[in-house]
Amino acid sequence: MTDHIYWKNGSLYLLDQRELPFKKTYVRCTTVRDVTAAINNMTVRGAPLLGIVAAYGVVLGVMEKKKAKRTVRGSDIAGITRVLGRTRPTAVNLFWALKRMTDAFERYEGDKDIAEDMLGEAIAIHVEDIENNRMLSLYGAELIGDGDTIMTHCNAGALATGGYGTALGVIRAAHESGKRIKVFSTETRPYMQGSRLTVWELMEEGINVELVPENHAGLLFSRGFVNKVIVGADRIALNGDTANKVGTFMIALAASEYKVPFFVAAPVSTFDRSIGDGTFIDIEERSAREVKYLDDRLLTVRNAKARYYAFDITPSRYVTNFITEKGIIEKPFKKYIKMLF
Amino acid sequence: MTDHIYWKNGSLYLLDQRELPFKKTYVRCTTVRDVTAAINNMTVRGAPLLGIVAAYGVVLGVMEKKKAKRTVRGSDIAGITRVLGRTRPTAVNLFWALKRMTDAFERYEGDKDIAEDMLGEAIAIHVEDIENNRMLSLYGAELIGDGDTIMTHCNAGALATGGYGTALGVIRAAHESGKRIKVFSTETRPYMQGSRLTVWELMEEGINVELVPENHAGLLFSRGFVNKVIVGADRIALNGDTANKVGTFMIALAASEYKVPFFVAAPVSTFDRSIGDGTFIDIEERSAREVKYLDDRLLTVRNAKARYYAFDITPSRYVTNFITEKGIIEKPFKKYIKMLF
Repeated sequence: MTDHIYWKNGSLYLLDQRELPFKKTYVRCTTVRDVTAAINNMTVRGAPLLGIVAAYGVVLGVMEKKKAKRTVRGSDIAGITRVLGRTRPTAVNLFWALKRMTDAFERYEGDKDIAEDMLGEAIAIHVEDIENNRMLSLYGAELIGDGDTIMTHCNAGALATGGYGTALGVIRAAHESGKRIKVFSTETRPYMQGSRLTVWELMEEGINVELVPENHAGLLFSRGFVNKVIVGADRIALNGDTANKVGTFMIALAASEYKVPFFVAAPVSTFDRSIGDGTFIDIEERSAREVKYLDDRLLTVRNAKARYYAFDITPSRYVTNFITEKGIIEKPFKKYIKMLF
Repeated sequence: MTDHIYWKNGSLYLLDQRELPFKKTYVRCTTVRDVTAAINNMTVRGAPLLGIVAAYGVVLGVMEKKKAKRTVRGSDIAGITRVLGRTRPTAVNLFWALKRMTDAFERYEGDKDIAEDMLGEAIAIHVEDIENNRMLSLYGAELIGDGDTIMTHCNAGALATGGYGTALGVIRAAHESGKRIKVFSTETRPYMQGSRLTVWELMEEGINVELVPENHAGLLFSRGFVNKVIVGADRIALNGDTANKVGTFMIALAASEYKVPFFVAAPVSTFDRSIGDGTFIDIEERSAREVKYLDDRLLTVRNAKARYYAFDITPSRYVTNFITEKGIIEKPFKKYIKMLF
């Protein structure tokens, strides 16, 4: 179905995104513990993909219980989803997928083929994500003009999702429809998802892409070198405040300064109707080591202090439109976001 | 006088800033060619320091002519300054220092000790820069409150100048006066001047510093974690538009959004009275390789395209004050900047 995440003979295989674009190696997961490790250590990342990986993680948890000859109960599912839910706090798709797996369990509880039932649900989540991305990309491509130069931040591509991608899906769909497009991919410090993943994905598709540090956005906008920005999202509040990779907010501010349209492409599962605005979004703080080292290479004074928040919040006033599988969301966002559910 | 740039026995010694903070090695320059190489390959960087290095470069050029038993003429100086002036286009201090050396030559032309005369002028430029930095830092320290948390970008420290520093000089002077200060140093992609130089300088002084990617500025401001920003400058137009390390503009925009005061600390030699505004400032574009590689380590797809503009322009409306050795410059900037000369 996709080659960066697939299920085969009772195991989940994940393309190790830490090694891209240099090596294509897979991590095989057979337990919940394997899956939480793969999420924590960045083997996989990207809000929609984290949801799908977590869903398969629940399947592995159910299989572990079955192997131990245990009847699988609601309390087991609660335990499994609690462990998976503790991995990363910001992307809401993770919690959305865990809720959906819990609901599925309640439907299938007591069935002797419960593991297969749950696998069916995980695969459905995976397939629906790809379909949603294709659909939102078709809507989004309508916003892209022939000859546009588009900036994107981090990686909201096939690799960040079940397949096809959100922000990069829109770019891909516009490219497939014959529009001539150029892309500026930011590097995305400190994990370099732009340098490593976005540039690679777009070059594989034959899309014209140029890498820049994200600190270039303001300068490029001021010179008129960019006419659209498209990013993905990790969680969107009811008013449209958007959590996405740290740095997104500053790009949105600079885009607003130069009236460059700023689009957020995300499936409905990224919208969190339980929160009114961005102040309720938990921002993950990761280890200082990720700023101080590039892999094993020290970049600063050994005992320096450093801080790394993985996401920031872009206030909804800086978002021009949301692009979803149900269509383009216009302002006032609160009214139209409510109608998504 | 300073240990990162000094003259000894007819040679110019430069601390190799590419190796910091890991190794303290010196590059010895005995020719104009050595000096242009040291500027181009980033052995030295920082607008005021580039001016000083170029001044010593003129002395080496005069010594080369003398060694060749040649009478040193105005046309020789014109040739030497042309070569040195072609190294980096943005920092005006470089051109300011070359002009000053040319003026000195015109005063001393025909003197048999012309090389010593020119060395005297270069040393004067160097010493005055340190004095100016100390003076502007005393003025600037008045703007800093006890308990402030200050963000700085790139390195405007002792290493970027003749000594003491501009933006970091202000921080240093406030610290020396007993104010408790915390600093957020940005990393500064792609050269990591923040990670490598600013963190090191501040830790050496015992000043509390924490490293963050520059894409964190918006988030840190939104949370009220920073109450002042101080940066240096490479060139300031008559209206206050400021060229500084790329990324400065986006930090200034985010600071403005949260009403965080944004100060630019620079000696009068950084002001370019020949240009009315920032549109006249030439922005240096450097090799794509500097974005694609960290030293010799490839960060992206091997044949990826990349772009690196080393500076950007912060429009004067985002600057709260300029800090100079002649005092704090208030708005309207055009009126008060004119009075500096």
